[in-house]
Parts: sequence; structure tokens; C-alpha cells
Amino acid sequence: MCRWAAYRGEAIYLEELVTSPAHSLIEQSHCATRAKTATNADGFGLAWYGDRPEPGRFRDVLPAWSDCNLKSLARQIRSPLFLAHVRAATHGATRRDNCHPFVNGNWTFMHNGQIDHFDRLRRPMETMLDDEHFHARAGTTDSELLFLLALQFGLRERPLAAMAEAVGFVEHMSRHLTGAARVRFTAAFSDGRTLYAVRYATDAQAPTLYAAPMGGKGGYCLVSEPLNDETDTWVEIPDGSAVILSEDGLDAVAFEPDMATIDVNTQAAE
Amino acid sequence: MCRWAAYRGEAIYLEELVTSPAHSLIEQSHCATRAKTATNADGFGLAWYGDRPEPGRFRDVLPAWSDCNLKSLARQIRSPLFLAHVRAATHGATRRDNCHPFVNGNWTFMHNGQIDHFDRLRRPMETMLDDEHFHARAGTTDSELLFLLALQFGLRERPLAAMAEAVGFVEHMSRHLTGAARVRFTAAFSDGRTLYAVRYATDAQAPTLYAAPMGGKGGYCLVSEPLNDETDTWVEIPDGSAVILSEDGLDAVAFEPDMATIDVNTQAAE
Amino acid sequence: MCRWAAYRGEAIYLEELVTSPAHSLIEQSHCATRAKTATNADGFGLAWYGDRPEPGRFRDVLPAWSDCNLKSLARQIRSPLFLAHVRAATHGATRRDNCHPFVNGNWTFMHNGQIDHFDRLRRPMETMLDDEHFHARAGTTDSELLFLLALQFGLRERPLAAMAEAVGFVEHMSRHLTGAARVRFTAAFSDGRTLYAVRYATDAQAPTLYAAPMGGKGGYCLVSEPLNDETDTWVEIPDGSAVILSEDGLDAVAFEPDMATIDVNTQAAE
Amino acid sequence: MCRWAAYRGEAIYLEELVTSPAHSLIEQSHCATRAKTATNADGFGLAWYGDRPEPGRFRDVLPAWSDCNLKSLARQIRSPLFLAHVRAATHGATRRDNCHPFVNGNWTFMHNGQIDHFDRLRRPMETMLDDEHFHARAGTTDSELLFLLALQFGLRERPLAAMAEAVGFVEHMSRHLTGAARVRFTAAFSDGRTLYAVRYATDAQAPTLYAAPMGGKGGYCLVSEPLNDETDTWVEIPDGSAVILSEDGLDAVAFEPDMATIDVNTQAAE
Repeated sequence: MCRWAAYRGEAIYLEELVTSPAHSLIEQSHCATRAKTATNADGFGLAWYGDRPEPGRFRDVLPAWSDCNLKSLARQIRSPLFLAHVRAATHGATRRDNCHPFVNGNWTFMHNGQIDHFDRLRRPMETMLDDEHFHARAGTTDSELLFLLALQFGLRERPLAAMAEAVGFVEHMSRHLTGAARVRFTAAFSDGRTLYAVRYATDAQAPTLYAAPMGGKGGYCLVSEPLNDETDTWVEIPDGSAVILSEDGLDAVAFEPDMATIDVNTQAAE
Repeated sequence: MCRWAAYRGEAIYLEELVTSPAHSLIEQSHCATRAKTATNADGFGLAWYGDRPEPGRFRDVLPAWSDCNLKSLARQIRSPLFLAHVRAATHGATRRDNCHPFVNGNWTFMHNGQIDHFDRLRRPMETMLDDEHFHARAGTTDSELLFLLALQFGLRERPLAAMAEAVGFVEHMSRHLTGAARVRFTAAFSDGRTLYAVRYATDAQAPTLYAAPMGGKGGYCLVSEPLNDETDTWVEIPDGSAVILSEDGLDAVAFEPDMATIDVNTQAAE
Repeated sequence: MCRWAAYRGEAIYLEELVTSPAHSLIEQSHCATRAKTATNADGFGLAWYGDRPEPGRFRDVLPAWSDCNLKSLARQIRSPLFLAHVRAATHGATRRDNCHPFVNGNWTFMHNGQIDHFDRLRRPMETMLDDEHFHARAGTTDSELLFLLALQFGLRERPLAAMAEAVGFVEHMSRHLTGAARVRFTAAFSDGRTLYAVRYATDAQAPTLYAAPMGGKGGYCLVSEPLNDETDTWVEIPDGSAVILSEDGLDAVAFEPDMATIDVNTQAAE
Repeated sequence: MCRWAAYRGEAIYLEELVTSPAHSLIEQSHCATRAKTATNADGFGLAWYGDRPEPGRFRDVLPAWSDCNLKSLARQIRSPLFLAHVRAATHGATRRDNCHPFVNGNWTFMHNGQIDHFDRLRRPMETMLDDEHFHARAGTTDSELLFLLALQFGLRERPLAAMAEAVGFVEHMSRHLTGAARVRFTAAFSDGRTLYAVRYATDAQAPTLYAAPMGGKGGYCLVSEPLNDETDTWVEIPDGSAVILSEDGLDAVAFEPDMATIDVNTQAAE
């Protein structure tokens, strides 16, 4: 299982969420207690929005806790919206191109979870991509491919609807090809203005997702696991939900895979 | 705590001890159960003896379990005497120069343990080295420095005696400078013919050391932690012991720090 | 332009060809004189055959001249057949998965050259692969894809014929999709017994290929550039040739792309 | 020879000087024309001043031109004072700890040049350091040691005077121990407010140093080699000079090694 944290609010130093000694994502990744896998040592990544529309990104394959670059950057960089991820590899080798967050134009995406039977699904998923999105694929993870599929399905214009279609497409294709489907999916994505997160699993056993106020009025962080033991602070987001952090504060809506576009798309693909 | 494994016997593929899926050093480093630290993700190293007097060496800072080079090398290389180490950093940054085993000429050394107050002891320990050994220092770990000190004290001619003097010197210097001393030390070292291992701690709480027959008649492996649950197979080497694996099989002798040379040496240094 | 060297003959230490100070592939990669690109600092790789049918492999993305692991391995490992490559990236990011040689079962492949319009050709080339070869793709280079295509076309059974078909397919597809084709291709590949090399370019301007006796009777090395200035030693292999190094010594035959299978294959793909 | 660039003025994006395609430090490092060594592929580093007194730092050992992190950071980060360095190793292995700029508190330092006989001088230079500066040593380069020596001699209070004493000490010690001395030294250093650069060589053959206006009124960049061919823009700073960039603009003064403190210091060391 991977771990991640995301923030939207008044600009704060990344270190507050990412590298501070007491209760941060990196500390948590080194000495895991709640999560199933012992450690997250297969790389890490940061994407943050600054003066430009497209985000900055920093990724490396070393264990996050021993990376001096990460520590220095998190201490210097301030941002009103950023995503941070530490990886425990399931699909895809340990290399920078496979580290989250993935970036496409001004969009970022990171993910904790898994797609069962991905080996069987990879090729039809890639086939769905048009040339532009196909050539944007740099690594070999299921997560990057899901992001590209959502972009293909309209993430830029209808973020949550497109993501619902991407997940729906994968489930449908999995049932079609393997007779079964299981997607477990806790993801965050953003265009630099709004921060979205989704918690969903085919079998209702999605990885956890929590929210807590942070960093001044209207600021929130979203995390895959609580960063400290103050259990009152953290609100668990239920399975089958999407969270939207925008200028209007935090909003939560139901999330379920959308099969609507599949009929059209898969007919075209077949 | 680090973990290590060493072998002497008929030539076997390194993978049998290092990377095989079921019960090997790397598997163990990924999902630790007995050791105190959760994982050993701060680099790894191999030193093996082949056709030449000096050993080959391969070290990297990635987590061992995700390194394809390691897997391929361990599968190809056969050796009658080799040392393998996975690191959880205590002193010294995560970089190749700080990964065990350390090599000097035909000698190799690797270590699990710690020297209390090393920050205070580093400089006088370096001062003890003559120019040749001083310039041989490539990293910043306590382990490498202990190895160089033992070489300085005659490891090449009197292996266990010189190691006893090196440990004795460190304890003495620590008491002298800080009023207290604690060395915990489970190490293996070799000249390519004989394999030595030592288990010792000032406070009698040394990291564990086990031996088991392996790889044909007369072959043995030494490990910091048993590699599987067949508890009958593994003989625990008691604290305050040295093990000698040679053509004559396995021999064990008492090991205690030697203060003898300290009077001479420290007087010269002071 | 990349550089490479390959050897078949009595077992020699890899360092003789790869890392020796005077005239070796690595030395050459650091201070290039003949080649067009200034340096080859985008990674390197070794594949060697030992006791097992499948080769060992070692690749990294550091400049080859500063890699201590490479130096130590080349000094220890002896092999009767090996391939070594230093990379100057044209297609594909700098990461291990993109470093030559590529390995598939007991086959190895490395390449110096380029495929024009690869961005347009990548997708149809991948489409030609059956699932087994498609899933074997780990990186993003044109070279790896050409290797997989040749495997798909029968490299294991008819090495030079399958390679001719792979190159023919790429040229044909390029003309079909872009109106033009240019493949420049100097490659070496082996099954562990026989070493093959090909020099071919659509425009008769293939990267160079040289052969010289080496390492005892019947031994030869093949190189992309002569490793020293003894011009008498090195025989230039002409454009449009394949070299076969086997138990019977060195043989050279004409090489030209084969369009034969294209009619069948592309019809199936379209 | 290494290459470097430094800037002080109104805040600009680092990419303008560091990574822009046309004429930047990284472009120059890839295709060197003026410098003696063919390439600078042994790592790179950035130090920049932002909101905090101490600088941010980013270093890696990959060739700078293939590092996506560098490209993204240089595109996002804006700074009124920064230093950038690409390395061609002379002393010290290729690893992050040996990459410039070096940082100590709010001070940064980077260097192009060499100290002859450094192997003989390293130990007495280290001996001059008090414990605080000794423990601050993380790598093995002559450059880092020169920086620590200057800090020890008072860089924080009297920047140019302390640097003159450090260089003077090294020359003196070299003559004393080896009968000869040659320091070639083109360096930049800063406390975050003022940017200093020095060009000096014992034999009057120091690496070059150029200055040019940049980035709005009062802004200047200092570079080891001109970044483009507009020869009118670049003013060469003569050997034996120091440049001071502060709120008052650019000032240049004579620089020569100072032997004054040596009598005291070396007597203490001997």
C-alpha cells in the first residue's frame, strides 16, 4: 500500500505535511503502524502549484526518509495546493517514471490501491488512449494508465464524471476479459485550483481516506492514513465518496463507477 | 539494525543465501519479523571471492528487494566465500561509500551494531590511523573506521587479536572521553581463505549471530538472524565469541576486547 | 550515438574490453574523438554468458566511468561471450530499463543507431507484438521494441532472417505512415552460443562496425568504434553486412531488410 | 574542470540561467566548447535563497541534462540570489555529498579549480578544523575542505579576508610539505545577501570568470564560462581579483592569499 497526503488552503511550507519530524507523511512511511505493508521505500514524489499554471514536480526512487533533496525542498517551498506520495510498489518497477504524482499539463494525480488482473487489462486500457494520451505514458504503472484514461474521458472538463467513467471502464473490461473485477482506489487529483479525492472499491474495501482542517482558515489536508493519534481531528471519508476542496471549502458527494460511456467506447475498441 | 549473511564452503550461487524467494537475506530485509527496526532499506552490498585474491564488490543504495542488478548478479555468480549485507542506517548518510561490506586489499568486513558516542570518538579514531589507512577511508560510518583501525592494529597478520585491540581501543577511548562505553558488535570479516565472525557487546547485549551447515560437506553460513523458522538448524553463537570457518571446519573461541596495545598507542596519540 | 563492444572466444575478464585504462569502451566513452556526440553519459550495460543458459546483466544510469560497481564486476567476471554498451540517449528517458543490452530468455540485444519518425511508428510496432512479447516490454526505447519485434518474427529460430524482417517491417511501416523511411542500425545480438552483428542503414550511412581478433585463438571482438589507433588491427565491416561469430570462426554475409512477411503481417494488423 | 553560474538581482526563475535551451549552464555542460574537459557529467547542484535565511539545495549525481527534477525545479523556483554548479570530478567520488554548492548555515560555496598535492594536504587541512567544522565535513572533496577552512578562519565575519587566509594556508602548507604549491581557484560564495566571487591562481593561470548584467536593473550574473557568443556582454574578471555583488551593485577588488594568520595557526598545528 502506498501513502499520500494532499493540501489546499493558504500557502504553507511543504514540510509541515511532508517531512516534519513529529507527524508527517515521511515519518509515517518509515515506521508504519496502521498500514498493511511494513514500509514505503519504493520511491516518493511531490507536485506543488506555484506561480505557473503547471505544477512543479520532484520524484526519486530512494527511500524518502534518507533523501536530503526532499528535506531541503520541503523546507523551502511554500504552496497553496500540493500532493505528496510515498510508494510501496505493486505494479511497475522502482524508477522515477513510476513514482506518483503523475502530471499532465496542469493536472496532477496520485493513487493508493490496485487493479486486479492488471496484466490482462493493461493492453486494452492502452488501446483506449488516443495518440496524444498514448504518447504521454512514461512508465508502466496501473495508476498512470488510469490517470491517462480519465484524461481521455474528459477529466479536464468533468473531473469526477470522467474519473467515474475510467473506473467503470476498467471494471467492465475486467469482467469481460477475466470474469471478475476488483478495483480498490483512493486517489487525489487537481488542476491547481480545486483538489479532488475519491475513495472507492468494487468490493467496498477501499483504502482509507481522511480529512482534517489545516493551515489557517478554509485549509484542509487529505491523507490516506491519519498523521497523528489525535483521533478527533481526522474525519474518515466513507467508501464510495468523492471530496472536493475549492474556494467554497470542503464538499463531499457520492462516487460510483459510470458505465455510460462504456457501450460507445468499447464498441469502438472491439 | 542491519542484517547480514556470510558463507564459506564449496562454491554456491550467491542467490541461495542472498535473493532466493523463500528464505534469504533480501526477503528477510523486506519483511522483518525478529529485528528491532522495521526494514533495511538503506542500501546493501555483496563481496565475493573468485579467481583473484581481492574480492569483487557490488553495492547500491536502493532497497535491495527492488534491485534487478542484485538479482541477476546473485543468480550468475558462484563463490566459495562471500559476504552480504543489508543496511538500516545508524551513522553515515545513505550512499554507496557507506554500504557494507568494506574492502581493503583482499580483506572484507561487514558489521551489525553500534558504537555509542561515535560523534565524540570519530576524530580520535581517525587520528590513530597512519596515512595509508587514513586515505583508505571513503565513507563516514563507524563500521568502516573500526575496520581500518583493526587493519592498522594488524588484522592482516593476527585477525582476531587485532579486532580485539580495535574494540578495546574504542571502549577505552570512549570511557576516557565520555565517562562511559558501549560497543555492540556482530561482525564478519575475511581474507578470502578464512571467514571470521565476532559477537560481542560491552553490555552483553550484542546483536545475535547464528551458524548453520550449508552447501555441501564442510560448508557453513553465518547470519545475523536465522533465515527460516527451522529452529533446529540454527545454532546461536553466544555473546563474547568468535567463530572461525576454515578448511578445518567451524571453530569457536572466546572473544574479549584487548587493552594491551592501548597503553602504547594512546600514549603516542596523546 | 551510442557505443558498444562484444566478444566471443575463450573466456576473458570483461575488463579487458570494457574498463581497462588504456583502450576500452569506457575510456572511449569518456573522451570521445571519432563519434559525433561528445559523450556517452546516459547509462551503460553489460550482459554476459556464464554457467547458465540465460545471461547475467548489469545496467546503471550513472556515467560508466564513475561507477565502482562496473569496475569491480568487470575485473571479477570472466566470460566467453559478452556484450557491453554505453548510451547517449536519443529515444527514451535515462533510466535502467532503457539501458542496453536488452535480455529476453537466453537472448541479448544491443544497438547503436536510430529509427526516424519513431514517435509515429511506436504504436503500430507495439501492436504487432503478441501478448507475451508485449508484456516483455519494460522501457520506452526504439531499440528494445525492435528487439521484441525480431523475437516475434522468429529471432530464436532464424536470427538473421527475423532481424531482416523486423527492419523491413519498420521501413515499410514508416513509408506507409510518413511517406519516408530511414533506419540506421548497427546491432549485436546473441543466444549465448553464436554472436551476431548487423550493420545496415536505409540511406547507406550506418554507424560503423569493426572486428578484430582478441583473447586467444579463434576469439574476436566486434566494436562500434575502434578501441585504439592501431588501424591495421581493425577490419571495417561494410554497410549492408551481417557478421556471425561461432565455433567456426568469423563469417560475414550480406544483410538487407526483408519485406516478405510484411504483406501477411501488416494485413493482419490493419 | 567544473562550470558554474551565480546570480544576484531581482528574483528570476532559475531556469533563465540554469536550464533554458539556448544558452544556459546545463546546455553548456552537455556540449562543451571552450573548456578543457569534454563534459561535466559527474553531478550538479543548486543553492538558492528564498524566504528563509538558510538556502535551499538540490544536488544529484546524474548528468544534469537528463534530470527531470532539475528541469522542473528550475522552472518553478524564483530567487534573487542563487548558485548553480555542474561537476567534472577531479578529487572525490561521484556522489551527492561531493556535489557543489556546499552549504553551512546560511553560507554557500562552489568552486572550479584544483589544489595540487591534495592527497598530501588533506590531513593537515582537516587537522586545522575545530570539532564543529570537522564534523560538518560530509564529503571528500578539496573544495568542501577549503570552504570549511575559510569558515574556520572567519568567513562569516570577514568573507574575503578569511578566504585569502584559507588559500594562503593551503599554499604555505603545500610548500612546507611538498616543496611546491599550486592552487587554481575560481569560486563563488554567499551569505544570502552579498554574492562574492574570487579568481586566483598561484601560477596566474586561474580558470576564467566572467560577469554580465542580467535580470533587470542592478542584477548581475557571474559565470565560469560565457553562456553565449555575444562577446560584448561578458566582462572578463582578471586573475587576482574578487568581485562583490551587493545592494550597491558590482565592485571588484584585488585578491591575494594572506599568510598573516599562518604563523600563528601552523605553529599551533605543528
